[in-house]
Amino acid sequence: MKQTLTLLLAAAASLGASAQQALWDLPETTSPEINADHTVTFRLAAPEAHTVELTGDFLPPATIQTPRGEVTAPGTAALTRGDDGVWQFTTPAPLAPELYSYAFIVDGIRVNDPSNVYRLRDIATVSDIFIIDGEQADLYRTADVAHGTVSKVWYHSSTLGADRRLTVYTPAGYESSAERYPVLYLLHGSGGDENAWSELGRATQILDNLIAAGKAEPMIVVMPNGNAALSAAPGESPLGLTRQPTTRIPRMEGAFERSFPEIVSFIDTTYRTHADRRHRAIAGLSMGGGHALHISKEYPDTFDYVGLFSASTRLPEADVSSVYADFDAKLRRQFELRPALYWIAIGRDDFLFDANTAYRALLDANGYPYTYVETADGHVWKNWRLYLSRFLPLLFR
Amino acid sequence: MKQTLTLLLAAAASLGASAQQALWDLPETTSPEINADHTVTFRLAAPEAHTVELTGDFLPPATIQTPRGEVTAPGTAALTRGDDGVWQFTTPAPLAPELYSYAFIVDGIRVNDPSNVYRLRDIATVSDIFIIDGEQADLYRTADVAHGTVSKVWYHSSTLGADRRLTVYTPAGYESSAERYPVLYLLHGSGGDENAWSELGRATQILDNLIAAGKAEPMIVVMPNGNAALSAAPGESPLGLTRQPTTRIPRMEGAFERSFPEIVSFIDTTYRTHADRRHRAIAGLSMGGGHALHISKEYPDTFDYVGLFSASTRLPEADVSSVYADFDAKLRRQFELRPALYWIAIGRDDFLFDANTAYRALLDANGYPYTYVETADGHVWKNWRLYLSRFLPLLFR
Repeated sequence: MKQTLTLLLAAAASLGASAQQALWDLPETTSPEINADHTVTFRLAAPEAHTVELTGDFLPPATIQTPRGEVTAPGTAALTRGDDGVWQFTTPAPLAPELYSYAFIVDGIRVNDPSNVYRLRDIATVSDIFIIDGEQADLYRTADVAHGTVSKVWYHSSTLGADRRLTVYTPAGYESSAERYPVLYLLHGSGGDENAWSELGRATQILDNLIAAGKAEPMIVVMPNGNAALSAAPGESPLGLTRQPTTRIPRMEGAFERSFPEIVSFIDTTYRTHADRRHRAIAGLSMGGGHALHISKEYPDTFDYVGLFSASTRLPEADVSSVYADFDAKLRRQFELRPALYWIAIGRDDFLFDANTAYRALLDANGYPYTYVETADGHVWKNWRLYLSRFLPLLFR
Repeated sequence: MKQTLTLLLAAAASLGASAQQALWDLPETTSPEINADHTVTFRLAAPEAHTVELTGDFLPPATIQTPRGEVTAPGTAALTRGDDGVWQFTTPAPLAPELYSYAFIVDGIRVNDPSNVYRLRDIATVSDIFIIDGEQADLYRTADVAHGTVSKVWYHSSTLGADRRLTVYTPAGYESSAERYPVLYLLHGSGGDENAWSELGRATQILDNLIAAGKAEPMIVVMPNGNAALSAAPGESPLGLTRQPTTRIPRMEGAFERSFPEIVSFIDTTYRTHADRRHRAIAGLSMGGGHALHISKEYPDTFDYVGLFSASTRLPEADVSSVYADFDAKLRRQFELRPALYWIAIGRDDFLFDANTAYRALLDANGYPYTYVETADGHVWKNWRLYLSRFLPLLFR
């Protein structure tokens, strides 16, 4: 008992004020609480607050006005204050299996749920998350299966003039074997970084679970930073902590695409890869889908599998970069080499839907074969996790 | 321009509501702002709020009452509301170089700074962070030097009956060389996990910077999870996202110490190590310091360097575990083998100061040599980052 108290004191003293509070005033509130019927109850102790709302991607979307016009945003719901100062809201209907994100809005200020330590950063915003188990969402859980290794590795890019940070997934058994593995290069969207797929995208869990189930081949997955102007995610680069690079929107100007062979070369030198076209895939979401489109067409001898997830398929002006010049001839060359898979997926509500339709028309007009998957919903991580889960089983078989 | 707008739209659409907000309503407020004189200004746009306070480890501490008595906690400061609804506070004096953490308290609710994406989780609490550059704090910056790799790796513990997660730092050049390296095992405190040293402790930056400057030997650093009841940090284990294991305080009951040879064996098998005593060190903070004390004494042939940072030096009851039995004889055996370094550091305000004094008296009484470093401040990460920075240059030379 004395020992326990000593350690309690040690723990409390090792923390900041609020963490002490979390230990001493043990949370009276449970939030979120996933009820037996898969409705979810959210609670916030805020006796002094005047209004408490919830915002989350499971609420009916709202239309908001911006200086650039209307955009669709997740809606809000009002919490009700209890006599004890604890505000509460329960979803009116059960939620389907999925990874969801939310936050509270207290007197107009966005507040993360103090009862929930599970949070993810999406560009400049941190949200609380929870998972409703079942079906597709079971792929997003850290299950009791063999786990791959996730590493943050730096490579040098002469083209971009910087050491740059990569996330690398090596499958379970990589360290204890002498085997060589195929490689998937997996690219994030505009505003994302080398952490996006392994965090928001649950790529680690999806890979572990599909490989353990025998539904995907063991593979190395390389997740670079696709913003040529940056070397790493916020806080991880020499820019330090006081600059806010996340508000800079990268443009497609060819530099990242041109530098890509340096990444492939670094990976083939550093890891036990099968260093040939048959064992390389490239896929990306949104801007990263645009990158995958252009990189695979620039280097058709390098990649046999291509995945375009809600991709930016609009073609940049040819004079922006040599990468975007001679598009038709390069694409013809790529399809002459008959890629093993050219996979396009998009949601019906995606603002890039029409652009993807136009791009598919271009492929059709030229008789270039591809696989097309159309889903519900729009330009959201829910779809990208789903697309990755469906794409991986098609690779290297 | 059209391209830029398309990508802006793509970026906005790829986000949740609040992230859209962050992009569309570009932050009008800069916070924190580090002024030229190293005072710091904090701002929060909260027109509807009634009170806005700041809590941070740079404010004069306050004494708060708890059910278990008085504890010292970081103090608070009131922000002043401007006519535009932006609340503001500037520190009355410049801050010394250091990594600091803070949060706002809006109408009684803890709120992270929406203008700052740089945050760290300490057990169950997420704080905003910033760095005042200079002196010791320059070690905490990601500098433009060669970077080591940080990996999350799983090993199997038969003793604990689980696959468990480790953080492993391999120094710059590890992947491209065939060299073998010495290994430091670096242990976290009660309530921490395998992420604590690399995140709160800035161990990655400290190692990169000291190694690049030639002040520390290139080494592998292994950061296990010291809570025998858990396999990984919150959200990273099969416990999932709805359980809150962080509020469970682990006790020292010997299981982690007994399982330690499995970690050493896994590392020596998986990495290119110098697998001998002369090339192994073990150090830890608080409970991890207690672990380092007992593990190094249980396995005196394994470790030549020992670091006790604000360590729990109170000895658990001998009957709790065989690890704690025969203490005097085991310690005698350890010192007969003349460890290359037995390093003890503690702050004058640490609640474990007296316990460390008593432990040093025990070493003195037996003529066991050790190095002692006494600093200002208490049981805080500021000290542990400092101790790591001073300990590393003493290893493997």
